Amino acid sequence: MQTAVETAKVWIDGEWRESDAEGVFEPVNPSTGEKLGREFPVSRWSDCDRALTAAVDAAYQLEQTPAERIAGFLETYATELEAHAEAIVVAAYEETALPVSPRLKDVELPRTTNQLRQAAAAARHGAWRRVTIDRERNIRSCHAPIGPVVVFGPNNFPFAFNGVSGGDFAAAIAAGNPVIAKAHPLHAFTSQLMAEAATRALKGSGLPAATVQMIYKVNHETGERLVSDERIGAVGFTGSKAAGLKLKHAADEAGKPIYLEMSSLNPVVFLPAGLKENAEKWARELADSCTAGSGQFCTRPNLAFLIAGDATERFLRELAAAFDGREPHPLLSSSTREQLHESIEALKSAGAAVVTGGRNLPGNGHRYASTLLRVAGKTFLSAPHELQREAFGNEVMAVVAADDQELLDALGRLEGNLTGCVYSAASGADDAAYARLAPLLRRRVGRLLNDKMPTGVAVSPAMNHGGPYPATGHPGFTAVGIPASIARFTVLHCYDNVREERLPAFVRDV
Amino acid sequence: MQTAVETAKVWIDGEWRESDAEGVFEPVNPSTGEKLGREFPVSRWSDCDRALTAAVDAAYQLEQTPAERIAGFLETYATELEAHAEAIVVAAYEETALPVSPRLKDVELPRTTNQLRQAAAAARHGAWRRVTIDRERNIRSCHAPIGPVVVFGPNNFPFAFNGVSGGDFAAAIAAGNPVIAKAHPLHAFTSQLMAEAATRALKGSGLPAATVQMIYKVNHETGERLVSDERIGAVGFTGSKAAGLKLKHAADEAGKPIYLEMSSLNPVVFLPAGLKENAEKWARELADSCTAGSGQFCTRPNLAFLIAGDATERFLRELAAAFDGREPHPLLSSSTREQLHESIEALKSAGAAVVTGGRNLPGNGHRYASTLLRVAGKTFLSAPHELQREAFGNEVMAVVAADDQELLDALGRLEGNLTGCVYSAASGADDAAYARLAPLLRRRVGRLLNDKMPTGVAVSPAMNHGGPYPATGHPGFTAVGIPASIARFTVLHCYDNVREERLPAFVRDV
Repeated sequence: MQTAVETAKVWIDGEWRESDAEGVFEPVNPSTGEKLGREFPVSRWSDCDRALTAAVDAAYQLEQTPAERIAGFLETYATELEAHAEAIVVAAYEETALPVSPRLKDVELPRTTNQLRQAAAAARHGAWRRVTIDRERNIRSCHAPIGPVVVFGPNNFPFAFNGVSGGDFAAAIAAGNPVIAKAHPLHAFTSQLMAEAATRALKGSGLPAATVQMIYKVNHETGERLVSDERIGAVGFTGSKAAGLKLKHAADEAGKPIYLEMSSLNPVVFLPAGLKENAEKWARELADSCTAGSGQFCTRPNLAFLIAGDATERFLRELAAAFDGREPHPLLSSSTREQLHESIEALKSAGAAVVTGGRNLPGNGHRYASTLLRVAGKTFLSAPHELQREAFGNEVMAVVAADDQELLDALGRLEGNLTGCVYSAASGADDAAYARLAPLLRRRVGRLLNDKMPTGVAVSPAMNHGGPYPATGHPGFTAVGIPASIARFTVLHCYDNVREERLPAFVRDV
Repeated sequence: MQTAVETAKVWIDGEWRESDAEGVFEPVNPSTGEKLGREFPVSRWSDCDRALTAAVDAAYQLEQTPAERIAGFLETYATELEAHAEAIVVAAYEETALPVSPRLKDVELPRTTNQLRQAAAAARHGAWRRVTIDRERNIRSCHAPIGPVVVFGPNNFPFAFNGVSGGDFAAAIAAGNPVIAKAHPLHAFTSQLMAEAATRALKGSGLPAATVQMIYKVNHETGERLVSDERIGAVGFTGSKAAGLKLKHAADEAGKPIYLEMSSLNPVVFLPAGLKENAEKWARELADSCTAGSGQFCTRPNLAFLIAGDATERFLRELAAAFDGREPHPLLSSSTREQLHESIEALKSAGAAVVTGGRNLPGNGHRYASTLLRVAGKTFLSAPHELQREAFGNEVMAVVAADDQELLDALGRLEGNLTGCVYSAASGADDAAYARLAPLLRRRVGRLLNDKMPTGVAVSPAMNHGGPYPATGHPGFTAVGIPASIARFTVLHCYDNVREERLPAFVRDV
C-alpha cells in the first residue's frame, strides 16, 4: 500500500503554486536505484507563460532598484544556504550519490556561496557596466541588464551550476536580471530546498517577488518555446550537446542570445621526454582527474595524447592499474550510465580498443567500470569526428601517435574544447615540441594548462570556463569567473545627447 | 560594336588572380541608369576555398606578429587611401550617385581613414585584450583574435562600411585577424581601388600576404557555405534583413559567431508640449534626417510617434511640404527603388495612408518621391508587425496616437532598433510623459537620443551602433566605436599554470 505523496509546487510570481502539470516524475537514489518517495511536476506551457509575464515586470522594477539591494539579496541568500547546509547536503547526496566530503559539503556548497558573494561584490562595484563617457560629444555607453534570463542547470553540480543558485544564476542576478530557473530533475528536491532559501532571502530584500522563479521540468517542445519567447532576454544552459543544440536552434531562430556549455573532451598531451621520467606519476594524476566524481565533470579528460614508446606503455599500464584498483562512485542516473556505455561502444566501433573497463559494475547503484580505451594516431586521423564523441563519465581514450608529426596532425583535428593541457619535461627537453603544438592546441581550447589536470575550475576573475564550439555556443564568453561571466547577461546601451537629469547615475559626469 | 572588357580580378592569397567565375556583372550608374563599362566576376566556391586556406595560414602568422606592425599597416592603408582619394571618390560617385560633397569626399572618406587610424591606435594600445591576471593562482586571461573574418559590406556606404576598408574590417584587423572581404556589387570598382591601396600598404608591412583578400560577389548558396566553413572565426555583415537572416541561419547551425546589422526603423517620439512650440522646426529636422542620402542610412527614421492634435497636424503639413519641396537624390540602384516601393505598398496594405510621395520620379536616375505615410495609433496596434516593415530610403511613417496611453502601448510593441529618440519641451512640460515612455524605448533600442536626429553615427568610443534583434544579431555588441567594436572579433583565452616563458608577453607578470 502506497502513501499518497503530494506533488511539489513550482515557484512562480512570488508564490509556491500548484503546477499546471502535464505529468510528474519521481527522483531515484543513484546509490540504491530506489525511488526517494517524492514527486515533482512536469510543467505545461501555462506555467512558463505565467513566469515570463511576471519576469518582464520584475525586470522593469529591477532597473529602478539600487545595486546595493541586489547585492544584499545575494549575500542573504548565501547566508541562508549556509544556515540550511545540512538539509541541503543530505538532499543532494540522496539525489546524486556525490560524496558528502570532500565534495558536496566542503567543496561545492562553499564554492556556491562564494560565487554568490563574489556576484554581490560585482553588483555593488559595477565594473561589469563598462561605462564609457565621451564628454565632448555627450555620448555615454554602458552595459545594462538583458532582461529575464532562463537558466537550465546541469545534472552534475547540484549547487554550483544549479539554475537557482549557480554561476549563471549569480551572474544574471548581479546584472539586475530576473531568473527563471529550470531545475535539473536529477536533483529536484535539492533545488526546492535552495529555492526556499532564496524565497526567504527575497523577503525584505526590496527586490520584486518574481526576481527568482523556478520550475522543475518541461518537455522538449515547451523548453524550445521558452527559449524563443519574445519576453526573455537570454538563456544560460549547461548540459548535454544533444539538448543544448536543440535549444540553441530554437533561440537562434528567434534572435535570442543563448550561452551554452555543452561538451568537452579536454585533451591532455604527455610529451615524450617528460614521460620517460614521470610515466607512473602522470598516469596517477590522470587517473585521479578521470575518476573524481566518476568523471562527471565538464573538464574531465576524455582524450590523452602520447607518442608511441616504452614510456607510453608504462604510463598506460599504470593508468589501467589505477582504474582497476579503485571502486568507482555511482553515476548520477541509469541514463547517465547508459549514455556512457553507448559512447564507449561507439568509440569502439570507430576503432578504439578497450584496455580495461567498458562494462557496468554489479549492484544496485549505477556504477560503471573506469574505462581506458586506446587508439592509434593513424586511426584517430581516419575518423576524427567519430573518435571525438564525448563519454560523460569515468573514461579516457589514449591516442598513441607514431611520431611527432602524427601527434601534430591529430591535434590539428581537435574540435572545440573547454580545456587543453600539456605535460612536459621540467628540463626543457620537450620545449621544441611544445612550441610546435601549443599554437594548434591554443586555438581549439578556452583554457590552456601546463602540468596540471583540468578538473577543478577555480572561481577566479581570470578563469575562462568557455571555449570554441561545440564546447560552448560562443568563444568570447566564460561561464565561470566574476565579473567576466556577467557580460553574457548584458546588452550595450548608449545615451546620445540625453539630458543630464534623465541619465542613469552611473553614466553622469560627476 | 562593343569593346571587349576585361573581367576584374579577385584578390586571393596575395595575388590579383582571375576568378574561377560562374558569371559576371556590370555595374550601372544610378544617376543615368547606364552601364559603367566594367565587368566583375561572380566567384565560385573554389575562390572562397582558396581564400579560406590562405586565411588560416595568415591567422597563425598574425598571432606571432607584433601589434606595431598591424598598426603600421592600418595607418599606411589610411595614407594610401588619402593619396588616391580623388580616383576613389570619382569611382564611388559613379557607382552610388551619393554626393561628392558633403559626403563622399569630405565626410565618408575622412571618417573611414579616421576609423583605420583609431583601429591602429587600439591595436597598439591593446586594451581590447582585457588582460586579467590572478597571480596567486597563476591564472591569466585575455582576449585573442578569433580567426579569419568574413566581412560583407552594405550597399549604402562605399567607404566607411566597405568590407575591405570599413569599421568591421578595421576592427577585425586590429585584433589580428585576416579578413576576407565580400565587396558589395553596387560599388565593385570603388572596392577594387581600395583593395589596391590595401595591396600597396601590405607590401613591406611585414604582415602575411593573405591578411586581406577580396571577392566581389557570390551566389546565396556559396555565401552560406562561406559563413559556415569550419576555417572561419566569425562573420561581420551589414545589409538587408532578408540576406542577413539567411547567413545567420547558416552560421548559427555551424556554431560560428556572426555579427549582423540588418534593419532598423529608428523611432522618433515628439512629445506634445514641445511640439506646440517647435512643430515646424522639428518637422524640418526630421525631413533633413529622412532625406539626407535619400534616407539610405541604417539610422534614418522610418517611424515618427505623435499624439493627435493641432500641433501634430502643423508638424505633418510642414514635413510633407519639406518632402515635396526637395529634389531627392537617386537611390543606389533600381532594386533599391523597387524594394522601397514594395515596402511602402506593404505598409499601405497594412493600413497606412499616403500623405505625400509613394511613387517613382521620372527620369533615368533611380529617384523616388520622399514619402510621408500616416497611420492611427489604433491601426498600428492592430498590425504592429506588418507596420514595422523597414522602408529603406526616403520614407517616414507618422503614427498618430489618440492619447498618452495609446502612445505607450504603441512603443511597447516596438521591435528591436539601433536607435530611438525623444524630442520634448525644454521647459520640462513633457518630463512626466518622458519618464513613462523612456523605459519602454530604452529596452528596444541600442542608442537612446534626446532632441537630436539619429542619422550621423559619431566614431566615438562611447558609440553604440547596435541594438536588440532584429536590428542586429546580438544586443551586446557595437559595429561602431573603437575599441568596443573589436570585441566582436575576439575569443577569450585563459592560461592556467602555463610556464612563464611560454606565456604571450601581454599576460606576463612584468
